[in-house]
Amino acid sequence: MQRFGILTNTQVEKVHEASLQILEQVGVDFSYPPALAVLKKAGAKVEGERVFFSAKLVAQQIKNAPKQFTIYARNPENNVIIGGRHMVFTPGYGAPFVADIVNGRRKATLNDFKNFAQLTGASVNLDILSGNVVEPNDIPHEIRHAQMFYTSVKNSDKCFMGSAMGEQGAKDSIRMASILFGSEAHLAEKPRFISILGSLSPLKYDLRMLGALMEYARAGQPQLISSLSIAGATGPVTLAGNLALQNAEILAGIVLAQLVREGTPVVFAGVSSNAEMRSGALSIGSPEMAMNTAATAQMARYYNLPSRSGGAVCDAKIPDAQAAYESMMSLLMAQVSGINFVLHAAGIIDTYNCMSYEKFIIDDEMCGRVKRIKKGFKVNDDTLGLNAIKEVGPGGHFLDKDHTFKHFRGELYQPILANCDDFDGWLAKGSPQSMEAANKKCKEILNSYEVPELSADVDKDLLKFIENLR
Amino acid sequence: MQRFGILTNTQVEKVHEASLQILEQVGVDFSYPPALAVLKKAGAKVEGERVFFSAKLVAQQIKNAPKQFTIYARNPENNVIIGGRHMVFTPGYGAPFVADIVNGRRKATLNDFKNFAQLTGASVNLDILSGNVVEPNDIPHEIRHAQMFYTSVKNSDKCFMGSAMGEQGAKDSIRMASILFGSEAHLAEKPRFISILGSLSPLKYDLRMLGALMEYARAGQPQLISSLSIAGATGPVTLAGNLALQNAEILAGIVLAQLVREGTPVVFAGVSSNAEMRSGALSIGSPEMAMNTAATAQMARYYNLPSRSGGAVCDAKIPDAQAAYESMMSLLMAQVSGINFVLHAAGIIDTYNCMSYEKFIIDDEMCGRVKRIKKGFKVNDDTLGLNAIKEVGPGGHFLDKDHTFKHFRGELYQPILANCDDFDGWLAKGSPQSMEAANKKCKEILNSYEVPELSADVDKDLLKFIENLR
Repeated sequence: MQRFGILTNTQVEKVHEASLQILEQVGVDFSYPPALAVLKKAGAKVEGERVFFSAKLVAQQIKNAPKQFTIYARNPENNVIIGGRHMVFTPGYGAPFVADIVNGRRKATLNDFKNFAQLTGASVNLDILSGNVVEPNDIPHEIRHAQMFYTSVKNSDKCFMGSAMGEQGAKDSIRMASILFGSEAHLAEKPRFISILGSLSPLKYDLRMLGALMEYARAGQPQLISSLSIAGATGPVTLAGNLALQNAEILAGIVLAQLVREGTPVVFAGVSSNAEMRSGALSIGSPEMAMNTAATAQMARYYNLPSRSGGAVCDAKIPDAQAAYESMMSLLMAQVSGINFVLHAAGIIDTYNCMSYEKFIIDDEMCGRVKRIKKGFKVNDDTLGLNAIKEVGPGGHFLDKDHTFKHFRGELYQPILANCDDFDGWLAKGSPQSMEAANKKCKEILNSYEVPELSADVDKDLLKFIENLR
Repeated sequence: MQRFGILTNTQVEKVHEASLQILEQVGVDFSYPPALAVLKKAGAKVEGERVFFSAKLVAQQIKNAPKQFTIYARNPENNVIIGGRHMVFTPGYGAPFVADIVNGRRKATLNDFKNFAQLTGASVNLDILSGNVVEPNDIPHEIRHAQMFYTSVKNSDKCFMGSAMGEQGAKDSIRMASILFGSEAHLAEKPRFISILGSLSPLKYDLRMLGALMEYARAGQPQLISSLSIAGATGPVTLAGNLALQNAEILAGIVLAQLVREGTPVVFAGVSSNAEMRSGALSIGSPEMAMNTAATAQMARYYNLPSRSGGAVCDAKIPDAQAAYESMMSLLMAQVSGINFVLHAAGIIDTYNCMSYEKFIIDDEMCGRVKRIKKGFKVNDDTLGLNAIKEVGPGGHFLDKDHTFKHFRGELYQPILANCDDFDGWLAKGSPQSMEAANKKCKEILNSYEVPELSADVDKDLLKFIENLR
């Protein structure tokens, strides 16, 4: 497959050069003394919290990051490879609200978190549980991060994510992973989970993000080093300038991660978008976001790094046509551009503010389609089917031919939600719309989900760990 | 921009070779004696209605078709270029039914045809009026094709399409175009309209299509030479085989068009998809259709020909989330793959059976987004915005900067339908969903549409021409 690219190679170089100028001449603020110490020791110019990076320092450190790495799941069948030609899907992240079409929008709870963990576990298209799929607002702050970690591990044996809540959140995630997988030393050999740490655009990293970034780097756990710059608000309104700013921020974070531990697995994660200019608010269902996704994939490849973008993202408030076209635009763009890690691949509505149960199921169907496209199709003597074409000849049909029976299951995508009846068949089923069908399907999945076994000792130790945090 | 490609160059060659074998060894049925005569004269082996093409004949004729051509509109500002890096959008074609959310589904009439002609005329994203956007079931067959032609011309000064109703339909279209633009000789110099002629898979062309194809070729008017082979039903279930079959059919049609008149402008038009295997019926909202679109763009480029695919196509019965994700999947795929002519870019629901007023508006919004992505973004010193980034610095914002005011209108897409409010703003507007918003917008457009002037003499002559057909 030949990947889509929105930039020429010369343009990629220009964005790279501009970002080096930003890093050298404007600098990045790091509000965390241990980070400043590490960067100063490596030769960066540090003035107060501001750090200026030389092109040489950036080049030296970026090349230390691996091109591709594996995250090892509790169930080895669910290991995932990040990088190369691989593409993995993770549902929405960070939504304070949750919604369904029966009960409307409300503050999310741990029960919602558990439901989405199970829906992710049940999906054939989603590869990694989101570390913060919704905010469990009913859980006290001091144990919330640990409860999310536990709820992920308890409800699925797929790969999962760690906490981004500062040094302490990261330390607790690492300790809980050690309870699950064995020693901390073992974790570094076989990365077990991934976390998302990001800049604050423009050109800042705060204490919370830096604390976690450095802890995870020390423990050799993978990180999505993310930038979300809003063109017109936190970044230049021109997409090239916003991309250069994003690039500078991601490079700065990756340099720090590599300085803490050479070879820390990182993902070049660009999710910049634009402001809705009447309000100045973030828009993520825009074509500008989709273009940034394509450009991010190209920049990551330029550095030989895995890439991350957004996925089924939208500004729509309910899972209607707008939600679907905005989401498919970004999701398909991620695939054709060669993005490796898609965060927010399912469930997001209302510009990251809400997870919709119905949209989760609708997006899962979209992910299946995009993965089918990613698989492409084989071209060989058997699939070219000359013998079948000769057998059938002009005016015939292939419905009952051996070649059709042999291949149809492997070749054609099977929808999990979409209605494929004819009009009368659809009427006979009560004219179902996507939202209603998704609501029904969601309940079916949750009702029939079988929670994979977790050793009773590990379960007990994890719960004890959480209790001790109170 | 670097286009997406689902096939490697070697695979493109393999598909080409397989299609030559089909043309040489299996042959294509042409149910129209004048076509058989032309092909026989050119050296093709003819047995009854079956024609066998040598690789040499195909190669010689395909290279005679232009790589790019212009269709000249009544209003020169609406001329369109077909080929190269250009992409044009035409709404749905051939739907017997029409639907809106208030009145439901019903047989389409000439009034519906007129409405869609006006909606197309009003759109900033749609470039060419569809020649058969809906079937005007209330108009007698003997004048239906002429009424559609007239209604197109009367309601918009954009480019439009001719009739595919056999030799007579084509002749009437050419005569009416001559009334509009001057002599028939003039038409050949400056192509004025385009028509769609297609094979009957597998490997047949019927009298109706061939009659029109040959008439339009004689008149030097452009044609979409189309194939829609259904993997698993009218073609091999394997996508490679279905693509090879499609390729053979399109090449056969183009060879005939070039033999009739060397240099006839043609578009390599592949809209093959797959069968929904439980029923054997056509599915067009599938990932297989999107993959065929990408492959069609590559095959067309291999022959240095403009390409055509489907656009906002879906199997959904109403403009819900399914309709939107299916449609955006194929529409965006057309763009990233470099398709030149997108037919069915707006309005289609229910697998080509119905045009939805609301979906037309929703798809128009999708087309706007896809066109914004097609435009890409500039990378230069001004757009990289280093001075603005220096001015703002870490932690600042760009909302009130000169660079932002200078660029935001040109850089950021402005939605025509999507809701971009925050949640409370959306609630305050009555929680609009896409379908309702589109219904409202559709009425607004039709109520305010200004029909462009058509000379009274031409108008009278066109109406007289139709009267004489009775």
